[in-house]
Amino acid sequence: MNKSQKLLEEIPKAIYFDDKDRFFILDQTKLPTQEIIEEQTNIEQVYDSIYQLKTRGAPAIGIAGAYGLVISLKKYVDLDLESFVKQVLKNASYLNSSRPTAVNLSWALDKLSKLATDFPKDKSVKELYSTLRDEAVAIHTSDIFTCRQIGINGANLIKEGDGVLTLCNAGALATGGIGTALAPMYVAWSKGIRFKAYSSETRPLLQGARITCWELNKFGIDTTMIADSVSSYLMKLGRVSMIVVGADRVANNGDTANKIGTLSLAVNAKFYGVPFYIACPYSTIDIKSKSGADIVVEERNSEELIYIKGQQIAPKDIKAFNPAFDVTDNSLISGFITEKGIIRPPYNFSK
Amino acid sequence: MNKSQKLLEEIPKAIYFDDKDRFFILDQTKLPTQEIIEEQTNIEQVYDSIYQLKTRGAPAIGIAGAYGLVISLKKYVDLDLESFVKQVLKNASYLNSSRPTAVNLSWALDKLSKLATDFPKDKSVKELYSTLRDEAVAIHTSDIFTCRQIGINGANLIKEGDGVLTLCNAGALATGGIGTALAPMYVAWSKGIRFKAYSSETRPLLQGARITCWELNKFGIDTTMIADSVSSYLMKLGRVSMIVVGADRVANNGDTANKIGTLSLAVNAKFYGVPFYIACPYSTIDIKSKSGADIVVEERNSEELIYIKGQQIAPKDIKAFNPAFDVTDNSLISGFITEKGIIRPPYNFSK
Repeated sequence: MNKSQKLLEEIPKAIYFDDKDRFFILDQTKLPTQEIIEEQTNIEQVYDSIYQLKTRGAPAIGIAGAYGLVISLKKYVDLDLESFVKQVLKNASYLNSSRPTAVNLSWALDKLSKLATDFPKDKSVKELYSTLRDEAVAIHTSDIFTCRQIGINGANLIKEGDGVLTLCNAGALATGGIGTALAPMYVAWSKGIRFKAYSSETRPLLQGARITCWELNKFGIDTTMIADSVSSYLMKLGRVSMIVVGADRVANNGDTANKIGTLSLAVNAKFYGVPFYIACPYSTIDIKSKSGADIVVEERNSEELIYIKGQQIAPKDIKAFNPAFDVTDNSLISGFITEKGIIRPPYNFSK
Repeated sequence: MNKSQKLLEEIPKAIYFDDKDRFFILDQTKLPTQEIIEEQTNIEQVYDSIYQLKTRGAPAIGIAGAYGLVISLKKYVDLDLESFVKQVLKNASYLNSSRPTAVNLSWALDKLSKLATDFPKDKSVKELYSTLRDEAVAIHTSDIFTCRQIGINGANLIKEGDGVLTLCNAGALATGGIGTALAPMYVAWSKGIRFKAYSSETRPLLQGARITCWELNKFGIDTTMIADSVSSYLMKLGRVSMIVVGADRVANNGDTANKIGTLSLAVNAKFYGVPFYIACPYSTIDIKSKSGADIVVEERNSEELIYIKGQQIAPKDIKAFNPAFDVTDNSLISGFITEKGIIRPPYNFSK
């Protein structure tokens, strides 16, 4: 392991699983004021950790679900195989209900459930348990490699003295690895390239302020927080060399759904000639969605905007329009940084 | 008074002065949760009200300073004229120190001080007191007329069914009248034109959420609050017919300093073809500033961004870039709505 790799090991982690099959998460609801790593010892606790967003981010909750299922099965290893398999399915179904719309969670739990139901009847429960544990570790490892490769591919875009702006948290704490949008920053920094990171606070839930600022700062990257409304002025001042954000879903033509505020960044980037990148695993590309018009944007409740940490900031009865995401037109996107490389326009992913 | 004028009388007021020379302010620091109108009975109280931002907005604090000076002089009317004039200057100087950089405050207090020093020596203290009171009322009345005329001129731009987006609070509560950016909305609504107002919350100090939402809602205008990052998506959805904001300073070529976030709105408006207006009194135009390059933007402290109502939202030691204003290029501005009419490009105000 060279120095740069050693540095990357120091990036904060959302999830830990050790060689004694112990499973830990960083409680992200306590950030940025407290840094609490909590061992997960039973299924109800894992359910609550996912439900309460102690661990969040699509890849991270898939991995947490897989590890959660594994540790919940420890106490059943003395059952007969048939009863054990039933318990696997029961526990997987229970954990899946913690965040029913999270695709990565059901994907990981389904993968483990299928391994259990397809498991040879002449083998032991302990062998099945080991298989499930190894698969959970494999899911995690695969995510680590994907993030790392996104980081390596994207790091080439960052030069000494650059200013790199991001929104929300597509970082280490949203994944099992070093993140997606933040991965290029981590790799570039670990190679000794010194740049300025700008983290847009990301109203209403402030993931940029709470989580991105915390993890970049913790790793030691020179990070500056801004209100979401400042990015345009920052570009006008010439302080932004590139923008890189994550994605919730990418349509076949490159139109991209991501956290609300992404579109405004992309429009401003176009106006000021700042390169605008989406960093995401290839699995985020949904070729069944032809364009952004096929993507339904979740609207969340007014209270999320009217109250900040319990403090009322607007009239109680005011209407609020609170979309969780927006859809950025492919024409505003300079490229997609994926584990397979950087994809440039024109976009047609099904080809 | 016709029905439309009667309706306009119902717009919330920042400042009241009655025919018994009693001076009241709406305590804006308590909004939106409490609506407290507080009589100002002594100079220390007026100082604190201005200092603590109980009343804020350039025109409003000028008027508050003038009335504050007047009520502070009531108890000195039995002095001889020379001693009374000294007291006028002393009190004016004290009040002016409550917000030393506020141009309107020193402008109003200087105006009253000059009246006192130039006052004929053969007249009575009571006559001078009346002159000062009448001048304070005249400053207030002049602002009422300016706001009303901005409203009348701008209302013609608003059509039935429109969506009108604003940022921060350039409303009734920032002035002695019906506001600047909000004045066209009030006049249009009072004429029976039904549109949707959108108020961008305006981080970090949330004047859009706290004050604009409150006053528009109170008057009965159909108002929806958004996070600052939502405006681009709102324009993409076709819901914004026009944007109107206030100004802190307008350079001779039309470049405009206003609350941070204005520039981003203007860039997005250009991209989506949405008309973008600045509403301001002619006195906001500073022909001595040739262009935006001559305008110094105030940078405020990090804490303002890191804490919301005492709640920590980012790491304590994170750097934050917190400009109070940005400067919008004249090329992005469709027009200036002033009391003298709507001014269209090309801009050259000194001509």
